[in-house]
Amino acid sequence: MEKGHMIYEGKAKRVYEVIHSPETVIVEYKDDATAFNGAKHASLEGKGVLNLAISTIIFEWLKQAGIASHYIRTLSDREMLVRRVEIVPLEVVVRNRVAGSLAKRLGIAEGVTLTEPFVEWYYKNDDLGDPLVTEAHIRVLGVATPEILASLETQAQKINQVLRTNLHKAGIELVDAKFEFGLTQDGTLILADEISPDTCRFWDTSTEEKLDKDRFRRDLGGVMEAYQEILRRIKGVQA
Amino acid sequence: MEKGHMIYEGKAKRVYEVIHSPETVIVEYKDDATAFNGAKHASLEGKGVLNLAISTIIFEWLKQAGIASHYIRTLSDREMLVRRVEIVPLEVVVRNRVAGSLAKRLGIAEGVTLTEPFVEWYYKNDDLGDPLVTEAHIRVLGVATPEILASLETQAQKINQVLRTNLHKAGIELVDAKFEFGLTQDGTLILADEISPDTCRFWDTSTEEKLDKDRFRRDLGGVMEAYQEILRRIKGVQA
Ligand SMILES: Nc1ncnc2c1ncn2[C@@H]1O[C@H](COP(=O)(O)OP(=O)(O)O)[C@@H](O)[C@H]1O
Ligand SMILES: Nc1ncnc2c1ncn2[C@@H]1O[C@H](COP(=O)(O)OP(=O)(O)O)[C@@H](O)[C@H]1O
Ligand SMILES: [Mg+2]
Ligand SMILES: [Mg+2]
Repeated sequence: MEKGHMIYEGKAKRVYEVIHSPETVIVEYKDDATAFNGAKHASLEGKGVLNLAISTIIFEWLKQAGIASHYIRTLSDREMLVRRVEIVPLEVVVRNRVAGSLAKRLGIAEGVTLTEPFVEWYYKNDDLGDPLVTEAHIRVLGVATPEILASLETQAQKINQVLRTNLHKAGIELVDAKFEFGLTQDGTLILADEISPDTCRFWDTSTEEKLDKDRFRRDLGGVMEAYQEILRRIKGVQA
Repeated sequence: MEKGHMIYEGKAKRVYEVIHSPETVIVEYKDDATAFNGAKHASLEGKGVLNLAISTIIFEWLKQAGIASHYIRTLSDREMLVRRVEIVPLEVVVRNRVAGSLAKRLGIAEGVTLTEPFVEWYYKNDDLGDPLVTEAHIRVLGVATPEILASLETQAQKINQVLRTNLHKAGIELVDAKFEFGLTQDGTLILADEISPDTCRFWDTSTEEKLDKDRFRRDLGGVMEAYQEILRRIKGVQA
């Protein structure tokens, strides 16, 4: 396998072509940390390595649960081989407990448990600051049909359940998670991107200590220690 | 009929009890103009009188179309007798063309016509700045059941159609409108509040000149002249 040109550099990862393999790409995890639509920026040494290791374990869990994702295999401590997809420009957020922007929007205390997990859509668009959008908005934008939305919602709910179950065994509560999905060449919709403390809220089950990117966003300190702790805990899980 | 105590003073209106008539209230239209959640404020002489006259005509149109509202009759140039309701704390916005916050949120040019009008929900809460909310959010807030939401959506779409048809005869295009609904004592959900250039976007059908509160929000001048023009035009409409 030969790494080709870089196709895209995002805030946390770089995406490379694979020579003679147009249906795959290599995703390289960087150490860059950003928050508030890029307004806050830092380099956290080793974050890329940790997020790749965490994402790998989580994608393996999903594979075992029969959930399709872009994940093929991990190539090195920063590189993952994945199926190339056309990303649907929606951040699919599943909420189990109230936190972050949801707490702010609704004026509800962080930590309130939701009766049922629900999905929110955010339009993935840096210039617009990834706004919350409704299904009617998505129809206007033309970024996903109602059928695709229904499928995204079903998949996100399933993934959330698998994650919650396995994380629970590691003493971690999944407060919320952001997923990205994409369409393969043959039109299948699969989970893509990463699943890590950068994209989920992970709380210690008993102490409710935050073990995720909120430590960075809110200057709580111990960011890398928390990511390290997540990795250490999920390594031991029998999925 | 005897006007009782003031129950509530809002940004644009005052609400009074009616002595010996607990199921009605008197709504008094003020001249205060506010925008951006109260950050911009002015007094526009005669606005209350114009908005009351415009609202009266529009509520009469709706009555003729068989649509229930709080409107009973207009008592003076600033006072309307209405059925007292418990307001559902949602702003029900119907969009026919892209404008205002929708244009900003989606990064779409103002004026784009929507294939089908759609409804948006905003949580009526000044402290939170009236945020856009989804149906899942509304369930969490507990401010309306899914059945009430379905009824609100159906009513809002119907009202929008009646308004569009009648306004069209007056050379006015309804770009969007904000409705408030409330529950009567006996549990009926009816249209309440006002329908005026403060709560709708009205554009001249041929020139697309703005004849509504955007003239105030955007400092375009001629605010009261525009409201006067709306009143003049709709007075002539045979509903
Ligand atoms: N399997 C895939 N195929 C193609 N692109 C992908 C795949 N998985 C993730 N991506 C995209 O790779 C880009 C790089 O990731 P990231 O650095 O997180 O970007 P961003 O700054 O947009 O969040 C993102 O736009 C993401 O959607
Ligand atoms: N029929 C009604 N019964 C009770 N309250 C009403 C009725 N119609 C409107 N209201 C309420 O009267 C209040 C005064 O109006 P307004 O000045 O526009 O207030 P706001 O500043 O909340 O927009 C609003 O809260 C509105 O919801
Ligand atoms: Mg990303
Ligand atoms: Mg009002």
